[in-house]
Amino acid sequence: MAFVLDPRLERDSAFVADLDLCQVRLQDDARWPWLVLVPRVADAVELTDLDERRRARLMDEVVLAYDGVRAIGAGLGRLPEKINVAALGNVVAQLHVHVIGRRRDDPAGTAPVWGVGRPEPYGQALGLALDAAREGLGLIEEIRG
Amino acid sequence: MAFVLDPRLERDSAFVADLDLCQVRLQDDARWPWLVLVPRVADAVELTDLDERRRARLMDEVVLAYDGVRAIGAGLGRLPEKINVAALGNVVAQLHVHVIGRRRDDPAGTAPVWGVGRPEPYGQALGLALDAAREGLGLIEEIRG
Repeated sequence: MAFVLDPRLERDSAFVADLDLCQVRLQDDARWPWLVLVPRVADAVELTDLDERRRARLMDEVVLAYDGVRAIGAGLGRLPEKINVAALGNVVAQLHVHVIGRRRDDPAGTAPVWGVGRPEPYGQALGLALDAAREGLGLIEEIRG
Repeated sequence: MAFVLDPRLERDSAFVADLDLCQVRLQDDARWPWLVLVPRVADAVELTDLDERRRARLMDEVVLAYDGVRAIGAGLGRLPEKINVAALGNVVAQLHVHVIGRRRDDPAGTAPVWGVGRPEPYGQALGLALDAAREGLGLIEEIRG
């Protein structure tokens, strides 16, 4: 069966790029620089649904996403102090990994971000955030202001 | 510099085993079957503080921890339906990965577990939970009731 993106992930995030394994998406919430990596593997729910090669690739792409998240944060003028990485799946079963840039002065403080307040969509700034993400991931040349 | 376990991690969890890379600890909270993997690498905070070989090893040990968490859950009579994996580090900077067995009927429902209610220490059942964890990790023979 082919990979199909979960409708809720699709609704809450915007397409950034397809890497070797994962579709990278930008969570449409400008409160945090936040990428979501979705392995393009049909019916994957747990890490154990990926074979060893794919799991190693997922780890590589998570590490790459750090640079994407840092670039988005830099674009927002809020460079992350810490990165959160999580595969939870309590709401959306489809395997997906959050990579989120955190700061002590962000709206969640020391708590996890999920369920905190309401998302603040990027609106007209979405394109800039997507460009920053792609630049951070090394997919496009440095953006010239 | 040598690896030193963060005092808060030490206080909130019990030693299970040292694997090749990580010290595995049981979160002392019987509400969830919950292991914490702490790479024994001095000053590691982010995944990017591990080299590629260690990151791959971490992924292997996370996957192994699934079996530990399932065994703890089975011992508690509450087999996990879903596993949460997360490296957050908002409170404790030292790199550590949570591997948590979740059920829809658990005290956090579809929310993450952090910050929900108060921990319920295992008390006298701690030894049994540690045995179940070690059995699940393949470190001891099956426990005979």
